[in-house]
Amino acid sequence: MNEIKELESKLGYSFKEIHLLETAVTHSSYTREKNRSLKCNERLEFLGDAFFDAIIGEELFKSFPDQEEGFLSRIRATIVCEKSLSIKAEELGLGQYLLLGRGEEKTGGRSKPSILADAMEAIIGAVYLDGGFEAARKMVLQQFADVLEDARHGKYIVTDYKTALQELLQQEGNVAIKYVLAGESGPDHNKTFRVDLMIDGNYEAEGTGKSIKQAEQNAAEAALKRRKDVF
Amino acid sequence: MNEIKELESKLGYSFKEIHLLETAVTHSSYTREKNRSLKCNERLEFLGDAFFDAIIGEELFKSFPDQEEGFLSRIRATIVCEKSLSIKAEELGLGQYLLLGRGEEKTGGRSKPSILADAMEAIIGAVYLDGGFEAARKMVLQQFADVLEDARHGKYIVTDYKTALQELLQQEGNVAIKYVLAGESGPDHNKTFRVDLMIDGNYEAEGTGKSIKQAEQNAAEAALKRRKDVF
Repeated sequence: MNEIKELESKLGYSFKEIHLLETAVTHSSYTREKNRSLKCNERLEFLGDAFFDAIIGEELFKSFPDQEEGFLSRIRATIVCEKSLSIKAEELGLGQYLLLGRGEEKTGGRSKPSILADAMEAIIGAVYLDGGFEAARKMVLQQFADVLEDARHGKYIVTDYKTALQELLQQEGNVAIKYVLAGESGPDHNKTFRVDLMIDGNYEAEGTGKSIKQAEQNAAEAALKRRKDVF
Repeated sequence: MNEIKELESKLGYSFKEIHLLETAVTHSSYTREKNRSLKCNERLEFLGDAFFDAIIGEELFKSFPDQEEGFLSRIRATIVCEKSLSIKAEELGLGQYLLLGRGEEKTGGRSKPSILADAMEAIIGAVYLDGGFEAARKMVLQQFADVLEDARHGKYIVTDYKTALQELLQQEGNVAIKYVLAGESGPDHNKTFRVDLMIDGNYEAEGTGKSIKQAEQNAAEAALKRRKDVF
C-alpha cells in the first residue's frame, strides 16, 4: 500500500505501526461491506477527538494568558469542529486515501465533511497510540498551525452570539429565528429575564439574563454550543 | 501555606511550581472579593477538563478492545462528570483547601459538588502544566483507579436510557417525563418514528428510530447526554 506512505509523509510523522494509520482511514462502511475482519476508524476517532480538544485547548491557554475560560472555550469550539477538521482533511487530500464501502463511494462519501473530519480525528488517535502524546501534539500543532495563527490574531473571537447564530443557520438554508420572552423573576430593581429561542417555530434553547438583550445573547450562545458539536 | 503541602502529598505528585496548585484551589469568589491580583482556577479547569477526558478515554479504549465508540463514550460520560469528580474531591477532603469568598463560604461552597468538581479538574490542569502529560496521566489514573476498576467490571454500562434518565431526574426532585409521538415517515415496511421527550411539559430532546420504543430510548439518550455535561 504505497498510498498510505504518501499520506504518512504529508502528515510529517513516521509510524512504527503503519496499520494504525490504515485503520484511521478505514470507514465503517468498508469494514461492514468488504472486510469484516478489519477494524474501522471509529474507536481511533473516539481517542483522537479528546486529544485534539486537549492539545488545541492548551495552545489557546498559552496563547491567551489573560483571557478567561469562557473566551477560550468559545474559540476552541470554532477550531474543534467538523468544519475546521474537514477543511484540514481536504488540504491533505485525505479523501483519496479513505477506504469506503460501495454505498458511501457512490454517494460522494470521499468528500463528505463528517467522514473527513472523523478520519482526521482518527489519525490524531493513531499518532497518539503509535508515538505518544508529544508526537500527537506536534502533528496537530503542525497541521493546524495556520488555524491557530488566525486564532491568535482574533479571527475566531465571537462577541455577538445572535449574529453568529444567524450566520451559522443561514448556511443551513432559510430558517426563522425568534426570541420569545418566557418569564421574569425577582424584584423590580433586580429582575431576571428568561427568553426562549425558537427556530422555525420549534423550541431550541433558553437563556436568562439581567436584561432581555442579555437573555437573548445567552440563548443564542446555548444554541451555538449545541450545534457546533462543542462536546 | 502548610495546608497546600498536605494536599500535594494526598495527590501523590510533587509540584515544581506550587503556586499552580494554589491557583487550582482558588475559587473565583475569592479573587473577586479578597484579592484581585490572584488568579482563580477557571483557566486551569478549562485545561484540566480536556486532559481528564483524554486520559479516561484512552484508559477505556485500552480496557475494552472489542467495544465500539458509542459504548466507550457512554461509559466515559458517567466517569467524566460533576458527580464522579466531586466524589473524588470529597475523598481527598478537597473542600478544606479551597480559597472561597465570603458569600460562597456562607452558602456552603466548600461542599458544593460543582465547586469541588471544578477544582479537581483545575488540579489536573495544574499537574499537566507543571509536570507534563505523563505526570497528569499518572495522577488521574491513581486517583480514579477504583472508578476505572468498577468500569472494567461493567458498573457503568448503560443499556436502558429511559430508566437511567428517570433515575437521574429523580435525584433532582419529582418531575414528569413524557414521550410524545411527533412523526412517522417512510413506507409501511420501513417506517421511522420520531418521538419528543417532554420534561414537566417542556420540550427536552427528540429521538428517531425504527420502532417507537427505539425512538424513545434515543430521545432519553440525547437528554442524558445533554444533562451529564458530556461535553
